[in-house]
Formats: sequence, structure tokens, C-alpha cells
Amino acid sequence: MNAGSPHLAARVRDIAPFHVMDLLVRAKALEAEGRSIVHMEIGEPDFATAEPIIRAGQRALEDGYTAYSPALGLPALREAIAGHYARRYGVDVDQRRVIVTSGGSAALQLVLAALVDVGDEVLLTDPGYPCNRHFVRLFEGHARNIPVHRDTHYQLNAELLRAHWSRSTVAALVASPANPTGTLIGADDLAAMAEFSARQGGALIVDEIYHGLVYEAQAPTVLGLSDEAFVLNSFSKYFGMTGWRLGWIVAPEVYVRPLEKLQQNVYISASTPAQHAALAAFTPEAEEIFEQRREAFRERRDYLLPALRDLGFDIPVTPQGAFYLYANCERFGQDSFELSQRIMEEAGVAVTPGIDFGDFGAAQHLRFAYTTGMEQLREGVARLEKFLRG
Amino acid sequence: MNAGSPHLAARVRDIAPFHVMDLLVRAKALEAEGRSIVHMEIGEPDFATAEPIIRAGQRALEDGYTAYSPALGLPALREAIAGHYARRYGVDVDQRRVIVTSGGSAALQLVLAALVDVGDEVLLTDPGYPCNRHFVRLFEGHARNIPVHRDTHYQLNAELLRAHWSRSTVAALVASPANPTGTLIGADDLAAMAEFSARQGGALIVDEIYHGLVYEAQAPTVLGLSDEAFVLNSFSKYFGMTGWRLGWIVAPEVYVRPLEKLQQNVYISASTPAQHAALAAFTPEAEEIFEQRREAFRERRDYLLPALRDLGFDIPVTPQGAFYLYANCERFGQDSFELSQRIMEEAGVAVTPGIDFGDFGAAQHLRFAYTTGMEQLREGVARLEKFLRG
Repeated sequence: MNAGSPHLAARVRDIAPFHVMDLLVRAKALEAEGRSIVHMEIGEPDFATAEPIIRAGQRALEDGYTAYSPALGLPALREAIAGHYARRYGVDVDQRRVIVTSGGSAALQLVLAALVDVGDEVLLTDPGYPCNRHFVRLFEGHARNIPVHRDTHYQLNAELLRAHWSRSTVAALVASPANPTGTLIGADDLAAMAEFSARQGGALIVDEIYHGLVYEAQAPTVLGLSDEAFVLNSFSKYFGMTGWRLGWIVAPEVYVRPLEKLQQNVYISASTPAQHAALAAFTPEAEEIFEQRREAFRERRDYLLPALRDLGFDIPVTPQGAFYLYANCERFGQDSFELSQRIMEEAGVAVTPGIDFGDFGAAQHLRFAYTTGMEQLREGVARLEKFLRG
Repeated sequence: MNAGSPHLAARVRDIAPFHVMDLLVRAKALEAEGRSIVHMEIGEPDFATAEPIIRAGQRALEDGYTAYSPALGLPALREAIAGHYARRYGVDVDQRRVIVTSGGSAALQLVLAALVDVGDEVLLTDPGYPCNRHFVRLFEGHARNIPVHRDTHYQLNAELLRAHWSRSTVAALVASPANPTGTLIGADDLAAMAEFSARQGGALIVDEIYHGLVYEAQAPTVLGLSDEAFVLNSFSKYFGMTGWRLGWIVAPEVYVRPLEKLQQNVYISASTPAQHAALAAFTPEAEEIFEQRREAFRERRDYLLPALRDLGFDIPVTPQGAFYLYANCERFGQDSFELSQRIMEEAGVAVTPGIDFGDFGAAQHLRFAYTTGMEQLREGVARLEKFLRG
């Protein structure tokens, strides 16, 4: 240790900030100057939490549900989550395998803490959700970023796992629908990856955080295909509860006790008022609101996708879920990071540069989020048109 | 990797469950059989969250404050926390150094993630809060447990730091008031430890989670003595918000940006409704309730401490804060773990065995929590008397 200079763990240097955060800061500065900015960079639904959940949260507070809850979660909520799989997917999930967490973030953290030793490898997609590789780094593992192309819908499959799985690999982490590409993994690929990973003595972790926000066929859950995969899910996206920080894991049975032990130590429990509120997420009234919102997202996608293609963005794979479009911007002849800055400064539209999602093709891609209303999306497209063609 | 058997990271084996949890399960089983159990094992205040905070939480939900908040926390809450140091302690804390977290657990986790590389040492007290060593293990550091005796009030001091600090040491973690002993660290010792740690290029981390729950002189905060120490605090104990999962860090200025980056990735943000609710914790109405509760805890301590001493427990250092009594039970001639089981089964009183807090003297100590009302405490003492003398 060097006296005098502040000591920082090596992982802090390796964990990158989100570039989109700096972009947001710049957007706010421009807005403070009176400029109008169309926000197509934000990974958060623009809907407030649905009324039935708000009411349930208020009642929980009224009733004094403010103490710690069991580390694995409120029994009633674990049961409701298991019931959700039965009703939505026709899949039987033992509620004892459900672990309620402080958001999808905590779900991923607990699963990786249970799996990753120093130097262990986790296979990830590039592009992918930026925090994934940082979580692996947090526990001194190596994130092995596998470039994924349009021909696999930007997803891993069993063949790619086989090609990249090494003696140090302990897990593969995939997402369906994926961020930033919005693509799904089909049931056959999910099953084959689960089987392959298990045969290697490793784990398949499936991020199903955007489940529900799917606009064509329903996304298959790996839980209907394998008992050996981990599922990460969240109340943030489809259920509209971002700021409450609530999610869940469905773990293979043998991992429940280790995860409980980690949760006891690392989090104690997820928020108790949030858990009581979330019970209302599985009522017909709430589901009706979620479905209306899903329709709104579909409408936005159906508008924005052809509009961006018309402007010259290359979006070869139609995104079937989440609320993102991952667009190749090569024909505009600029690095996407610089392009995102120019689009912000000159056109007044905020979008996320590819670099936030990895290295592969990063300089050639932008992510557009349709988390803002139709009017704003139309305005954004008009501004982009003027900027790109003007 | 061995195919066939489930893969578990080594840290999971090293992270012990709380024995008190098994005890709680047994207590509940006995209660289900109709037995009455006096609970003196629980580290959670028996008061529900105070009315003004409940109302503020309900209003926040009504007003739709359900989106993510900034990674460092709501600006208004950071300001309120800084103001709390000015009012309570006369200490000027720059609000930019305040980082709102998902409980004291997240506060500790973020600070250790920022400091601990593989193999780095963190000095801890033995006995101490059990999760501390597990958090160090989580990041592949070594928890160096230093036995602390009654003659230093079960606390570390600069002399002990000097004796145990090695080339691998990056931080010392102390708590004032401490769990399980309830003892404080004086201003001189805090200042000397902060100075010594900084001179070694390391960090002093002070867990001030039980601040406010102090029954004689006010506990000094290290923030009034050094700009180079980390403070961990929480809304759980004095502020009575356990289940909401909300806490904070006050960090040396140079660490704020690294901690922000970690928070963005690992937690995104603390709960937004909880942060809005917590704003009401700094109102005079709420503070009046906290002070009444503090008086109730004092009354309990003032009853339980002499009562346990009369029964033959040796409590050589008067605990000045938190809600625990750490009692030597050697004269009862049994390992404290077995004794705690017998006390539960035969006397119907749940207490925590020393083994949950470390190794040093663990078999000779029990922790009594006064988180239950006077009537229950009297009943517990009567049962203990009958059991020990009968």
C-alpha cells in the first residue's frame, strides 16, 4: 500500500461508468439552458407504478408491515410468483425455489456470488446489458464476452457455448428478451443451452427481466424446459416498479439454501413494504393495466422500427420484446459515440451509444429506447430526419 | 469443474448462516406447539415505523415517486442527512459526501467493494457483527478478527491497529455502539484510529448504525474528527425503518465517484419511495417519537442489566448503546451454544449464543437483546431465574 494516495480496489478501475449517464447529465444541462431534448436513451418505462400496486403499498404501510421479512421473501409473494408461472406459462414451479430479491440487480449478484470463484469465467453476449460483466468482475471472475451476430439474433446458442466453454467456465448468462437488441431465444435453443451447461457441471442463467414485454409470440421461460437453470426476473419492467427495487430468482433446488445464506448476510431481506405492494401485481386489475401498457409499447415499436429503417438505420432483426431498437448507423460514416453526441447537441435527441453494451460493433451501433410517448417519438424522428438529411 | 455435482463458489462454504436463525425456527416450532417463548434474540426494534414516516411514504406513493432515483440518492435526502450531522453533532458534512444506500448492508458492501482486492486484509473485532467478516470474504479479502477484551471495552484502538496492521491490511472496521457488546468508542480513540489508518494508506470504516440509541453521553461521530474515515449508517435502528432497507455512507471526497460507479452497477439506486419517506425522519414530530423510544430502550437496559448481573451473568462493561447485553455465562458451567438451546427448550427464553459473533470467548457468552417490552423482559428474567436456580 502506498501511504498518501487513496487506496482503491482494482475492480473499481475495471468497472466502467455508463456513458449514458454522462449523456443524461449533458441532456439535463441543455434542458436547463432551455433546449428541448427528446429522450430515447432511458431504460425505464415512462409509466408510474400501476394504481392497484400503489394502493397495496399504502395499505401495507398503514398496517405497519415495516419489519424485516424472511431472507427468501414473504411466503405469500413467493407463492404468487410461482402461481404466475402456472397461469402465464402453464409451468409448474415449486414456490420453494423462488427467492425474492432487491431488484434484478440483487438477483444477478446473489447468483454470481454463489457460482463465481476467483478466475472463473462467465460467458456473456457482446452486446449485452453493461452491468453483467461488472457483476462478474465484482466477484473476481472473468467475463468472457462472446460477439453475437445478426444471424443468431444477437443471442448465444448451444453451438456457441460449446465453442467458447473452457475449463474455467462456470456459467453462461443470456437474456430473453435482450437488452439492447430486443431479441428472444427460442425454446429449442434455451433447452439445448440448459442441457449443455448442466452437462459441463456449470449453470445457465437466463435473464427474463423483460418477460411480459413481448409483442408477438410469448417468450418461453427456461423454467418450462429445465430444472437446472437459474432465472432472474424483476418487478421493474413489465410490472412497472423500477424505483421499488424488487425482483426474484428461481433457482435449482440445491442452490436455494446457499442463496438464502448469502441473502441473509448481504441484504438481510428485500424491502417488506415493496413485497406487500407487489402482491397486487398479480391481480386481474393490475394485469389489465400491464397489458394496456404492453400495447402502448407495441404501438411505439411498430412506429419507430420502420421510421428508423426509413432514415437509413440498419435494423436487420426485428426486435420482439423489451423496449429497445439496436440500430447499425455505419452508413452515417461516424463512430456511434461521436454520432450520439452530435445527435444530442445538434438534433436535440438523446440516444445511447453502442459502447455502453460492449465492444463488438459498438462503434457502429446506437440503441433507441421507446420509453417515451408517441408524440415524442414522432418529434424525435422528425429531428433525426432533419439532422441526417438536412 | 466436476460434471454431475452442483458447482458452488468457495465463498459460500465460508459464509456461515446465523445460528440465531436456526434458533428462531426452533422458537417458532415451539410456539406452534403452544409453548410461550420470550424473545431476547432479535436484533430489530419492536416498534413499527413512526407515523410521520408512514404518512410520508404513503404520500410519496400517491404522488407517483416510483421511478429510479439518482445513484447517489435523492438530493433532498442527502441534504437532510448532512443537516442531521449539523444539528445533532455540530459537525459540518458536505452533502456531496453522502451516498444513500439500500440499508446499512449495502453501505458496507459498497465500501468494501471499493477497498478490498483479493487477499487484502480488513481488521475486525471479535466479537463483532457476524456479517462483517462475510462481506470481506465476499470480495475475496481476509477478515482478520482481533480478539477484544473488556479492558478496551471490547473495542479496537490505535495501539491494537498498530499491533495487527500488516502489509496486506487495507482497512479497519469498527462499530460504535457495537453489536453485540453495546460499547462506544471515545473521541480520542476514534481520532487516533482514523489518523493511524490514513497514515498507513488505509481506511477506517466506522459503523455508526446504532447512533442515536445511546443512553448516556452522545456517541461521537468520526466525521467530527477526520475527513478520511468512512461512516456507515442506517435508517433501521434509531429511525425504526428496518424493513424499508435504507441506509447511507459518508465517504471521503475522493471515494464518492468510485462508490457512485459501483452503486450504478450493483444497485442502480436505493428504493425511491423509501427515500421520500425517510425525509420525514428528520422532522421534529418524528424525532420526538424516536426520543420516546430511546427512553423506552434505556428503561429496559436499566432493568435488564442489574437483573442479569443478579442472576450471575458477568457483564463487566456497562453497555452504553444499541439494544444488546453481552453476558459472560461461564459460571453456569456450559458451552454457551448448548446453554442457549437449554434456555430455549427448558425455560422458554430465546437468546443468541456467542458463536454468532466470532470465536473469541464465544463459548462463554450469550447476547441478550432488549427489543421486547418490559413485561416480556420481566417474564424472561423470572424464567431464567427459575431455570438457573431452580
